[in-house]
Amino acid sequence: MKRQCMMIVAFAALTANAQFGAPRQNPTVPSVKAEIEDFKPASTNQDNKQYPMVNSQRMVRAQISAPKATFVGLDIDGKIYEMTKDENGLWTGTSAPQDEGFHYYQLNIDGASVPDPGSKYFYGASRWGSGIDIPAHDQEFYTVKNVPQGSVNEVYYWSTVTEKMRHGYIYLPAEYYSNPTKKFPVLYLQHGMGENETGWSAQGKTGIIMDNLIAAGKAVPFIIYMDNGLDVRRAGEQQGGFGGGQRPQGQRPQGAQGQRGQRRGGFGGFGGFNAFQDVLIKDIIPMVEKKYRVIADAQHRGMAGLSMGGMQTHTITLANPTTFAYVGMFSGGSFSVDEVKENPDFQKTNKVLFMSAGGRETGMAEGDRSVVKAAENLKAIGINAHSYISPETAHEWQTWRRSLYQFAQLIFK
Amino acid sequence: MKRQCMMIVAFAALTANAQFGAPRQNPTVPSVKAEIEDFKPASTNQDNKQYPMVNSQRMVRAQISAPKATFVGLDIDGKIYEMTKDENGLWTGTSAPQDEGFHYYQLNIDGASVPDPGSKYFYGASRWGSGIDIPAHDQEFYTVKNVPQGSVNEVYYWSTVTEKMRHGYIYLPAEYYSNPTKKFPVLYLQHGMGENETGWSAQGKTGIIMDNLIAAGKAVPFIIYMDNGLDVRRAGEQQGGFGGGQRPQGQRPQGAQGQRGQRRGGFGGFGGFNAFQDVLIKDIIPMVEKKYRVIADAQHRGMAGLSMGGMQTHTITLANPTTFAYVGMFSGGSFSVDEVKENPDFQKTNKVLFMSAGGRETGMAEGDRSVVKAAENLKAIGINAHSYISPETAHEWQTWRRSLYQFAQLIFK
Repeated sequence: MKRQCMMIVAFAALTANAQFGAPRQNPTVPSVKAEIEDFKPASTNQDNKQYPMVNSQRMVRAQISAPKATFVGLDIDGKIYEMTKDENGLWTGTSAPQDEGFHYYQLNIDGASVPDPGSKYFYGASRWGSGIDIPAHDQEFYTVKNVPQGSVNEVYYWSTVTEKMRHGYIYLPAEYYSNPTKKFPVLYLQHGMGENETGWSAQGKTGIIMDNLIAAGKAVPFIIYMDNGLDVRRAGEQQGGFGGGQRPQGQRPQGAQGQRGQRRGGFGGFGGFNAFQDVLIKDIIPMVEKKYRVIADAQHRGMAGLSMGGMQTHTITLANPTTFAYVGMFSGGSFSVDEVKENPDFQKTNKVLFMSAGGRETGMAEGDRSVVKAAENLKAIGINAHSYISPETAHEWQTWRRSLYQFAQLIFK
Repeated sequence: MKRQCMMIVAFAALTANAQFGAPRQNPTVPSVKAEIEDFKPASTNQDNKQYPMVNSQRMVRAQISAPKATFVGLDIDGKIYEMTKDENGLWTGTSAPQDEGFHYYQLNIDGASVPDPGSKYFYGASRWGSGIDIPAHDQEFYTVKNVPQGSVNEVYYWSTVTEKMRHGYIYLPAEYYSNPTKKFPVLYLQHGMGENETGWSAQGKTGIIMDNLIAAGKAVPFIIYMDNGLDVRRAGEQQGGFGGGQRPQGQRPQGAQGQRGQRRGGFGGFGGFNAFQDVLIKDIIPMVEKKYRVIADAQHRGMAGLSMGGMQTHTITLANPTTFAYVGMFSGGSFSVDEVKENPDFQKTNKVLFMSAGGRETGMAEGDRSVVKAAENLKAIGINAHSYISPETAHEWQTWRRSLYQFAQLIFK
């Protein structure tokens, strides 16, 4: 019961901070007048595209040619900023300051919600669409450097649970290539609601963060496996669970496009974690341990995830208490003392239990229900619990990049 | 001189068949009325998106909600099909039949060219944007199957030529993982104009084609390395070459977005191949041969490419005649007898010289200047030359998927 409450708190935080646009719901507001005209193309732009831009106040400026349009808006962070048209049909508009780090956004052209042709595209908010990275004071830790490079590799495998080929990504550290007999620990790392197996490497910059940490001697080399925790439907199963058909709140069907999602039903409850658990335990872990040079025991196996992925980590590590020694829950709620006390196998196996949240995530960053308090309570019963609060970020990727950076330094040591 | 002529022929073919949209140039035509109403969601759609759809006549039907728009068009294959609006603001339109295989496309909303929010996104026509795969009679060869899986891996490396970190992809066959001491041959495989290092794996389905061929015993296991042949700018170099600033004909700047490209100048001539050649010979090949288990000699090294990548293959293999024994040129023109005769090292080293084109590519598929005729001429002087004509396709990915499928069966044997 307590566990479910924790989850609901976390989902509330997720929807409260939802970055994804829901155009017909988001309020339309006037474009902002920037004080400082030092706008530069965003790092997430397509090659040679000038817009969108960001200034030193972390405002986003978008621009698009739409000569015959009567309305164009920049849809970011739950608001639609009205853009204005010049004599050549070029629309320009500027948002209020955004948090440091990655944000999903889109354009609205005469009522159509579309990707900005200037940005690269990312999967989140249950769609491939525009994203923008706002420069951060600590961005060095996720900047590509000339250090020994691991690689993020695409993986297809046969799932006995779904009776289909499935798809994931694996990060192999540089030493996997340079030291061809060495075996490595593995972290299983999951994305959030409305995201997929590409999130941790694209938005999360997992490979870059790990290469830099390992090169600096701050983390031991380990493998990271990332799968899709949402699209799991058991063989023969039509709907239910956290299957592909769900829509997070705020994402309404766009004309006929949403009907399929609607028919399949909504959230499906937490039972959907079971199908992913089956795939993880029966298909993914055996596949990784067979195909890659892996130390295949609990002391060299971890699981972590963000938001919904953190809740999956919570559920799955408690239900498989002798499988994972390292556990990370980023913006996904927390473990309670009771849960751990009632699970002596979990307590015995666990080496690190890490819980984090963004400093702006109400209910998770401060007070009695915070991850800080939860870690203190767990430490008191002998768990090696850690908490981390990402400064001045919300339920968003900058929180999770920083959480991975912190967590990776604690594990497999 | 002859070589330059061949290249110009190939570029003419490229621009004549250009699939990418140039909205203010493409003619607007009425939406087509489909005879057969058996439309199904395209395989290239985002998860759970119904549109775009394709019917058995290979017509494309797009749909988008744009309640306030006065014009919405489906921009595909050099035409803009006018879509029509229903009472709910939902626009729908259907194209004429398309060739089998992959096509770039976009939507036009009141003069704005934007990606279709229903499709996945691909890099081509010098932008990330919508793509659609039209079912093909031979699509089995590029369909994911439950066979031993290799993987396509992301690679970052330091370039001494550009003095920057660069980015590519490497395909490692399944046996690379299962047989940890075996060394493999390597094919260096290049994309076309306006594309990048993602093209061969995403649009080209390289990993899937190879896994299927190897599992069927039709190709020997080999590694494929894919890089960006366009974004090469030597350290300190501001412009010129085939650098990132170029725009293929038909791609005009969109408002201010194109200005940077314009300032950097246009095509830059064929001299731009030199910078990529330097990166390939001095950076990429040494990196691949150091990091991966590779047989590092000419008899186990090949180069191939499509269109501009074929021309790069042509230039680079002739200029480095003892480096590559296997050479493939897909829709990129052909080698002449004189070029090979004048280059005894090339003639001595070469084991297979493969040239292909789409059956609808004027000047390359039929007659005296065809790849068929070129291969006959080369055979007559003792070269193991092969030609292949892809039936009923133009200068497009279906031609190149089939070309790779054919070429891969001939090499490293």
